[in-house]
Amino acid sequence: MPQTPHTERHFTAGQTVRDVVIGMADGLTVPFALAAGLTGAIDHVGVIVTAGLAEVAAGSIAMGLGGYLAARSDAEHYAKEHEREKREVVEIPEEEMREVAQVFQSYGLSHKESAPIVEALAKHPKKWVDFMMRFELGLEKPDPKRAFVSAFTIASAYVAGGLIPLAPYIVAGYVKQMTVGNALLLSVAVTLAALLVFGFVKGRYTGTRPTRSALQTALIGSVAAGAAFLIARAIS
Amino acid sequence: MPQTPHTERHFTAGQTVRDVVIGMADGLTVPFALAAGLTGAIDHVGVIVTAGLAEVAAGSIAMGLGGYLAARSDAEHYAKEHEREKREVVEIPEEEMREVAQVFQSYGLSHKESAPIVEALAKHPKKWVDFMMRFELGLEKPDPKRAFVSAFTIASAYVAGGLIPLAPYIVAGYVKQMTVGNALLLSVAVTLAALLVFGFVKGRYTGTRPTRSALQTALIGSVAAGAAFLIARAIS
Repeated sequence: MPQTPHTERHFTAGQTVRDVVIGMADGLTVPFALAAGLTGAIDHVGVIVTAGLAEVAAGSIAMGLGGYLAARSDAEHYAKEHEREKREVVEIPEEEMREVAQVFQSYGLSHKESAPIVEALAKHPKKWVDFMMRFELGLEKPDPKRAFVSAFTIASAYVAGGLIPLAPYIVAGYVKQMTVGNALLLSVAVTLAALLVFGFVKGRYTGTRPTRSALQTALIGSVAAGAAFLIARAIS
Repeated sequence: MPQTPHTERHFTAGQTVRDVVIGMADGLTVPFALAAGLTGAIDHVGVIVTAGLAEVAAGSIAMGLGGYLAARSDAEHYAKEHEREKREVVEIPEEEMREVAQVFQSYGLSHKESAPIVEALAKHPKKWVDFMMRFELGLEKPDPKRAFVSAFTIASAYVAGGLIPLAPYIVAGYVKQMTVGNALLLSVAVTLAALLVFGFVKGRYTGTRPTRSALQTALIGSVAAGAAFLIARAIS
């Protein structure tokens, strides 16, 4: 009886896809909302483009650099805890064995049932440490080389996303017939389309229903832009 | 021999602290950088305040609502996978038992060593499913009620953080003697102080050295603000 490969059925997005999604979700939303908000208050395309691009620079750096430093801290935290477990497995093996048994007891296994695996693990100290890291502490081994690539991917996706809603305003700076109002309408149309497509694709990768993901993503952008518009108009 | 409680030594931040950190990190950084950037291009305090508050509205909603919907999707993804595992444990138990054995083999245990635990788990189908969720799929059971609280906490922290760098500009709107340049200097001083304190406290909760965390957080804010300033000045 032929069987389809069973292991691949639980699809999870690759790391790069995840980074693109993180950066682009915010990049499409916040500069869009900011530019739309400012249109409610300021009738000057140059100011809106300046604010939008300043936001794209600030947001992409905050996300990228922030993510990079957080990933480095995670890697160091992991290394520190790994050292500690390594030491404890040697220095207080009974205590660590009790902890392994506790992990299994929380899954309904009696002390007697978990005893063989506790003993088996104790024979492989290196694997034992890995086991404690993952199952006692819930820590996954981070890839130190990924931090930089990940930061760069997130920041680039933010910039790419942010330029979409700003493009109509940039064009309006050069085309004299195009008013700020026209630029806003075009920006809303282009960005809603981009949010729908992005949400749809994101849904396919993350396991949410694509149509629903598309609508949710467009909703976040719309609510954020609407709130920014109302606040900007209220102040000015 | 008295022993200090061993289980609490691996400190991880509580959920609320984590949400405040997420919201405030971006809230302190992006509105600060945007306002500083605009000061490089626009000599008009009202525009900077409008753009800043519009950004705070957009950013807090994008983070809060985005987080809320993502948490709900996660909860549904978990429920779906949980249903599937529950079904598979009944329908293809041999396959699932092979998967449990694989998890343990990846930790260096032989088939014989892992056999007792595989059999023991098979006797407790409910716990077996929980085990597969966590150890095969790496999914933690999400708390559905947390999504809303979490979203609200992140958004509030973003607003609270964002008002700090904007406060000097808001004051400058009322105090005629205060120029945009004064507001920028005051905003830089107040925000750098806030970033240092925030980074320090964050470090204590997340396990990074507090001094280093303080400097890193201030660095992210400074680089983002510097880039926004240069870009805004280059365009205008």
